[in-house]
Amino acid sequence: MTHIQIGCNLSYTVTQTTSFLFNIAAARTLQQTIGEETLQLNPAIHFETFTLGTEGIQVYRIVAEPCELQLQYHAQVELYPDRYDTAEIIETDFQHLPYEVLPYLNPSRYCESDRLAHFATRLFGNIPHGYSRVTEICDWINANLDYQAGSSGESTSACDVLIQRVGVCRDYAHLAIALCRALCIPARYISGYALGLQPPDFHGFFEAYLGSRWYLFDATRMAPVEGFVRIGIGRDAADASFATIIGTAALTTMSVWAQ
Amino acid sequence: MTHIQIGCNLSYTVTQTTSFLFNIAAARTLQQTIGEETLQLNPAIHFETFTLGTEGIQVYRIVAEPCELQLQYHAQVELYPDRYDTAEIIETDFQHLPYEVLPYLNPSRYCESDRLAHFATRLFGNIPHGYSRVTEICDWINANLDYQAGSSGESTSACDVLIQRVGVCRDYAHLAIALCRALCIPARYISGYALGLQPPDFHGFFEAYLGSRWYLFDATRMAPVEGFVRIGIGRDAADASFATIIGTAALTTMSVWAQ
Amino acid sequence: MTHIQIGCNLSYTVTQTTSFLFNIAAARTLQQTIGEETLQLNPAIHFETFTLGTEGIQVYRIVAEPCELQLQYHAQVELYPDRYDTAEIIETDFQHLPYEVLPYLNPSRYCESDRLAHFATRLFGNIPHGYSRVTEICDWINANLDYQAGSSGESTSACDVLIQRVGVCRDYAHLAIALCRALCIPARYISGYALGLQPPDFHGFFEAYLGSRWYLFDATRMAPVEGFVRIGIGRDAADASFATIIGTAALTTMSVWAQ
Amino acid sequence: MTHIQIGCNLSYTVTQTTSFLFNIAAARTLQQTIGEETLQLNPAIHFETFTLGTEGIQVYRIVAEPCELQLQYHAQVELYPDRYDTAEIIETDFQHLPYEVLPYLNPSRYCESDRLAHFATRLFGNIPHGYSRVTEICDWINANLDYQAGSSGESTSACDVLIQRVGVCRDYAHLAIALCRALCIPARYISGYALGLQPPDFHGFFEAYLGSRWYLFDATRMAPVEGFVRIGIGRDAADASFATIIGTAALTTMSVWAQ
Repeated sequence: MTHIQIGCNLSYTVTQTTSFLFNIAAARTLQQTIGEETLQLNPAIHFETFTLGTEGIQVYRIVAEPCELQLQYHAQVELYPDRYDTAEIIETDFQHLPYEVLPYLNPSRYCESDRLAHFATRLFGNIPHGYSRVTEICDWINANLDYQAGSSGESTSACDVLIQRVGVCRDYAHLAIALCRALCIPARYISGYALGLQPPDFHGFFEAYLGSRWYLFDATRMAPVEGFVRIGIGRDAADASFATIIGTAALTTMSVWAQ
Repeated sequence: MTHIQIGCNLSYTVTQTTSFLFNIAAARTLQQTIGEETLQLNPAIHFETFTLGTEGIQVYRIVAEPCELQLQYHAQVELYPDRYDTAEIIETDFQHLPYEVLPYLNPSRYCESDRLAHFATRLFGNIPHGYSRVTEICDWINANLDYQAGSSGESTSACDVLIQRVGVCRDYAHLAIALCRALCIPARYISGYALGLQPPDFHGFFEAYLGSRWYLFDATRMAPVEGFVRIGIGRDAADASFATIIGTAALTTMSVWAQ
Repeated sequence: MTHIQIGCNLSYTVTQTTSFLFNIAAARTLQQTIGEETLQLNPAIHFETFTLGTEGIQVYRIVAEPCELQLQYHAQVELYPDRYDTAEIIETDFQHLPYEVLPYLNPSRYCESDRLAHFATRLFGNIPHGYSRVTEICDWINANLDYQAGSSGESTSACDVLIQRVGVCRDYAHLAIALCRALCIPARYISGYALGLQPPDFHGFFEAYLGSRWYLFDATRMAPVEGFVRIGIGRDAADASFATIIGTAALTTMSVWAQ
Repeated sequence: MTHIQIGCNLSYTVTQTTSFLFNIAAARTLQQTIGEETLQLNPAIHFETFTLGTEGIQVYRIVAEPCELQLQYHAQVELYPDRYDTAEIIETDFQHLPYEVLPYLNPSRYCESDRLAHFATRLFGNIPHGYSRVTEICDWINANLDYQAGSSGESTSACDVLIQRVGVCRDYAHLAIALCRALCIPARYISGYALGLQPPDFHGFFEAYLGSRWYLFDATRMAPVEGFVRIGIGRDAADASFATIIGTAALTTMSVWAQ
């Protein structure tokens, strides 16, 4: 069990009535339990908390009038890292996949697995199936991409990053997810906090469905997965933005921590 | 109430052990109830029936050994078309959208709403909000695309069709969905049977979330929406393929009916 | 005849041996003659002047060692604007096009005319051929795009701008060129100085081949074509960059004038 | 010296007045001289022969009324294959490249070298410069793509093929050209006849500018470059189509030979 303090400070200049959806709180999952948790808003606007989907995702929704908005989120999280023998973990045949997992085989906005079928099969089609195959995908991505802050943008997809060979954490995750799906391995995007990430920031990584559950992977290898706290879960980063803003608001400061 | 007979015949030459997922059965929704319903397979392979998601989608899953596979699906459906005064139907502000609807605002594989924000706002930003705005989107698409069988492919997206200005039903739906989402109107893809569609085939159309429910639209205007029977519901056509095939099987004959 | 003073100041911080190709000098064409013309470099590096292609394009090539490099170009240009009755100008049938004009019918990096065939024919296929058809293409682009500095990048193509509906002068030109070529009208990209352009900058516009010569057009309508001084001519902006840099140099200041 | 018989038969069903540009004749270059050469048309339509650009490209232009058009081209070609020691061939620095070669550094429709800068530098930036570097690019392409007839289309570009990893000869050439340009090596597309190609067809390959001349390469390795007869030369396949058709004509039969 690992005990982690996580949190973030976000400030916005809001210039007209604006709706915000914040996806910054630790999700409620089997692998992580939440102790003390606070959300402070200044000005002290009413916020709504709700759970999105069946994955335990916590989301805050607020409506702000023009102001300088400050938000501080803080939580204590207990992580129960999984213990497993990766050599024992197999891939599940398509006909035995649970129904709720099937959508994670489909291509999504930033993970065009349909376009990568030949490529994925060529590189990873003939190696032993199982946990180690997903590890090999991560190895390949890690060896063939360069991590560079600012090298990609909001519209950058897995295919784009395969061409430009440079990206940030979300790009690494998108390419890994797309390759997994192209090989019939369900995969999904996870946003989160990461212990030991330098510089501290929100992180993006992914899960692959193997055997009968989801396993965490990170092709960037910038921080140990044992220290990851899940926030959002989705088909790709389109589903896990830390802030969705409908209106006019400019982010002025942002800090993130996990310790 | 409309009483419709729907069904399809599909034949495949299966050349190695192959898993199929068929999304051809009428969904169980408030607007349609299913009477007599049969699925016949020849050879008489065991099939599994399950419900996908919370939308009442019925899916069949089978595993076939090499053979000439024939499938016949047939159902009697009662449609309870909605009665509503479209002039009364408003758009719902972002802050009041139900949580389960939010994912349908995100861009998806074939509906890159993130790239269409300026375009959508330019064309449809300043017209009155409500049901009629979605109708105007459909009007625009209908007037600016040409329907042509075979003009697009599996990888064609909303942005592609906006460039080539020619497509089939799924392309019309994808562009409409992408424009709706770019305007903050939740929209989703529907596959189905359509009474009066010529030539008879599976059809693709969409729903927009307005007021407090989903409304059916079809930018192709090739058949009346009152005669549509829903099969699959998803973010785009990636979620609603009538057949997902893992293995090696070639479609040899296909016929679809709704009468 | 119009008498124009044109010029530019460019400063670079050069941090390793770097080759520059500057395409900033007025071209030698029938419509413009060059009076006094100077290029000053500080430090006073040797520069090579040459003429590229058969269009009278003047290019400077230098190799700079690490330094603060300042460049000033200045020229006096006499413009002999064309007098013609646009109503008399016809399009030339493919079989009568001169051989040297044919490459300007082909798609290029930023003008994917091959993808726009259906769209171009749909919008402009049935209107009278001639100079006025190119004017209508410019009208359409002007009415359907928004000009916004910084809204596009180096990789933005005609198809991209057709989707995003916002761009700068080079994007307007690329879309116009692509539509012309899709209609079998040869078209090429021109970079230049523009009298009256606000704010002053290098400008991008295009020429269409009609009757038996090239005619100047500008879909941005930000300055009168009578005051345009041609610098570079090419298939698209890839051929007419004002500075090609092989090495490491950062642009620190830039000013452009035409008066 | 190699003596080769080349030629092709093409048949079209012409259904309205149609202009054709045929780029099927052997070019006049230093490496190949043309002996007996015939073009037969049935019906015996008048054709125009001209030379395009400065590269010795021969093009035929005809206008056909509705008919069944048959074309037979035949030529005897003497090839003077180059003798050179590849270990001696160096790359030319940007500042010493001849002016007429510079356009072949720019990105083109099917060779988006601007998007491949990071990738090309990553893979080929740190290996010794010279002829052998282009050979390594060909090696990499040959090892990382699969050749499959029908796997790509008219709009497939170098970036597309880098994603799908399957293509035909023009795709191999486009990717090689794009990678060369991204490394500041001028490269251009060549269409031609190829002795020993199975099945016989028009072939697409490329030339890189090294030292002070162009050298022939073929990343497909399907036939020896010593037996290649050049037809068209251009920035990419957009400039070297064997038939440009303005009107309505359907290709009914096609055969190509080189022996």
